[in-house]
Amino acid sequence: MAFNKSNLNEKIDELKPKFIERLRSAVEIPSVSGDESLRPQVVKTAEFLQKELIALGAQDIELRELGTQPPPVANKDLQLPPIVLSRFGKDPSKKTVLVYGHYDVQPAALEDGWNSDPFKLVEKNGVLYGRGSSDDKGPVIGWLNAIQAHKELGLELPVNLITVFEGMEESGSLGLDELIKKEANGYFKGVDAVTISDNYWLGTEKPVLTYGLRGVNYYEIEVSGPNADLHSGLFGGIVSEPLNDLVKLLANLVDGQGKILIKGIDEQVAPLTEKEDKIYDDIEFDVKVLNDATGSETALYNDKKSILQHRWRYPSLSIHGIEGAFAEAGAKTVIPAKVKGKFSIRTVPNIESNKLTELVIKHVEEHFATLKSPNQLKVGLIHDGDYWLSDPFNENFTAARKATKAVWGIEPDLTREGGSIPITLTFEKELKTSVLLLPIGRGDDGAHSTNEKLDLSNYIEGVKTQSAYLHYYAQGEK
Amino acid sequence: MAFNKSNLNEKIDELKPKFIERLRSAVEIPSVSGDESLRPQVVKTAEFLQKELIALGAQDIELRELGTQPPPVANKDLQLPPIVLSRFGKDPSKKTVLVYGHYDVQPAALEDGWNSDPFKLVEKNGVLYGRGSSDDKGPVIGWLNAIQAHKELGLELPVNLITVFEGMEESGSLGLDELIKKEANGYFKGVDAVTISDNYWLGTEKPVLTYGLRGVNYYEIEVSGPNADLHSGLFGGIVSEPLNDLVKLLANLVDGQGKILIKGIDEQVAPLTEKEDKIYDDIEFDVKVLNDATGSETALYNDKKSILQHRWRYPSLSIHGIEGAFAEAGAKTVIPAKVKGKFSIRTVPNIESNKLTELVIKHVEEHFATLKSPNQLKVGLIHDGDYWLSDPFNENFTAARKATKAVWGIEPDLTREGGSIPITLTFEKELKTSVLLLPIGRGDDGAHSTNEKLDLSNYIEGVKTQSAYLHYYAQGEK
Repeated sequence: MAFNKSNLNEKIDELKPKFIERLRSAVEIPSVSGDESLRPQVVKTAEFLQKELIALGAQDIELRELGTQPPPVANKDLQLPPIVLSRFGKDPSKKTVLVYGHYDVQPAALEDGWNSDPFKLVEKNGVLYGRGSSDDKGPVIGWLNAIQAHKELGLELPVNLITVFEGMEESGSLGLDELIKKEANGYFKGVDAVTISDNYWLGTEKPVLTYGLRGVNYYEIEVSGPNADLHSGLFGGIVSEPLNDLVKLLANLVDGQGKILIKGIDEQVAPLTEKEDKIYDDIEFDVKVLNDATGSETALYNDKKSILQHRWRYPSLSIHGIEGAFAEAGAKTVIPAKVKGKFSIRTVPNIESNKLTELVIKHVEEHFATLKSPNQLKVGLIHDGDYWLSDPFNENFTAARKATKAVWGIEPDLTREGGSIPITLTFEKELKTSVLLLPIGRGDDGAHSTNEKLDLSNYIEGVKTQSAYLHYYAQGEK
Repeated sequence: MAFNKSNLNEKIDELKPKFIERLRSAVEIPSVSGDESLRPQVVKTAEFLQKELIALGAQDIELRELGTQPPPVANKDLQLPPIVLSRFGKDPSKKTVLVYGHYDVQPAALEDGWNSDPFKLVEKNGVLYGRGSSDDKGPVIGWLNAIQAHKELGLELPVNLITVFEGMEESGSLGLDELIKKEANGYFKGVDAVTISDNYWLGTEKPVLTYGLRGVNYYEIEVSGPNADLHSGLFGGIVSEPLNDLVKLLANLVDGQGKILIKGIDEQVAPLTEKEDKIYDDIEFDVKVLNDATGSETALYNDKKSILQHRWRYPSLSIHGIEGAFAEAGAKTVIPAKVKGKFSIRTVPNIESNKLTELVIKHVEEHFATLKSPNQLKVGLIHDGDYWLSDPFNENFTAARKATKAVWGIEPDLTREGGSIPITLTFEKELKTSVLLLPIGRGDDGAHSTNEKLDLSNYIEGVKTQSAYLHYYAQGEK
């Protein structure tokens, strides 16, 4: 039987009660990867997915073990949760799509302020509440639902589908990079496109497709002087204090309007083209959304374009704190002997990490020289992760755009995000393919917060979108 | 029998073995006031002193109870250690001297790097090692030794003597202020002079008398914006970050050469007179002493006078740290929502606390206004303690100077200290009398450190100095 949009959508609507039950079963297992004592529950969730995949007729199902979790852990023999691999079809005449999601969740407890048990799915006024409902059990189960709808219709999947569901996403995705590298020419050989459903609409009304993420370079400035902390009564006024040097260095990194003061960075940023600028015209967003999110009137820009562009396609510099100084409540009259200032720069095309680090070190060292301080300076990179930028008009995105339009009746906004999802880059680099971020939930789902929810409409229309995407991708560009 | 210096000194030399044994008995009781579990040992030390005072013929001996220790404490019913009060003589024709010291000590453990058990007095190469040997059991026992020497010579004390020995000095002198206020017209009625032996020579060669202490005003600058911490990936570059404002405010308080940038403070500092400046000429000190103390080459001045004057008679400003920002090791990409910068200003004559606070607030608020930040600013005083300055040429100090010259054969240096000893001011204010700081130990005694020591010569010559001081003070100015 050939693809018929309305048949498929009708079937999905018909199966709604079953889809809710499937999500309910998944939410009920408290698969908190950050809580060692709940590790058996994380494993249990993998086994639940395995059972579902068997019922749906998947092939080559594996709970791929990743070994023990590296320190710091309380239990030295703690096993990492397995990655659930499976495959639907291996037809060489079809394209192959890899879908990724995670079945572990953030911690949650009723006492945190939940209106109901976070590990019981509650349906209320068309909204499904529960930990993991949106992040990321809903989207993961969504793919299974899409497969079930095809199966019950007797409709063949239009592509070969590979599922990769991991159980450590909320805890650093330990082991996933290695698996992707290892299986690039094994289990994942021949993958044409990757789809990740693990982010959110920008707002609450309009679907989006996400085609970019900023990277991050994290730096530390260490200033040291005396060989131990000093008493400010005895030494205040007669020694050069490292913390005094450090605040001057930190104060000279970014101005109050968010402009980075380190020379040479702006020149590395890809110019804004007219075409790119136009993408922002129709995006649903407003300064009020930002102020609501921060609970304050602290926005640096009032217009939609400036806000979104500075969040997505321009670098930013944030100071995070100081290690080694007095940080408690109350008063302590210490002169700290060695202090480390921490800041990071969010990176965007075409900033090169090494070049950026050179500029940062030069800037801080030159400023420190003007202080004529007898203290010792060290400045360096702690870690870096690249930005990611895809072509939102490629075959993968085009299929997702068509699917969204078909289901929601509207063109999705093309968005980027200010944070990073490192696994996106790993898939792109190792499988040498396009990666699409296809969010299911809304911007106000409260992914890591209390009363996490997934609107029932997003859940069901999401299954339709995921299904349609596979068909449009199979059909190709036109 | 009349006062005869050489008789008294001979008797003190003769009693040396007994004096060492008395200090040994005191050091053996681990009276750590900061360790709740050792509170019975602190009380035991008070009882030891009581027994010694009885044997020496003291009158009106009291272990004055101070009630339970206020929170935070693990044991809600923890009793404060008593203050040991006693009196030798009540002759209205004699002057009355109050001597203060403390019998509690800092924590100490062999594992910290002591060469021997800190609670066993060890004599080695003319040095007595042990916790409390110098801070402050040595000086406290010194007064008892002086009384014993008089008693064994059949020599009447030249003054009425009141002893005030407390057991909470290392833990905030809880209860002492109230006791002084309460007994100003009671137990302490008629006190003509107060002597505190609880500080140190500036160096290791030359005795000193201390006539001044700096005060301290502690300030907090709070900058707040969003209603919760934000993720720098999502919000970096589009909101005004409180910590960015704060480092700019902190960077504008004091320059790298120690000059305070807040206008109007310099004008409040008492001008350096020629007479005062001359006091510094003969003081034994060197930049090397400072660099040795900090284990670095971070001194802001190379000449003795500049160092000492900036430590003792000029204000200084130190930044202590930031509350509310990321302060751990490692990397966290947080934008802190509310941060509090802490700094203090060491005050000197004639800075008035209220006036200083006005200047600080004005300076910070004006600078904040230039930042045009949408964040909220609060700046205020957390606590203040006055500076103290005595006349080093008054009757009390003159007696101590004569005593020092008689015992050590040299004029003592007249010093001040950069820190504060709040009890000094309380005695002066409540008893309306002169307070003298008469140190016994040397600058390298390691009061709060490992291998605390008191040179045997300082101990014994200290007893002679304490004794002679009482006689010179009884004789009066000439």
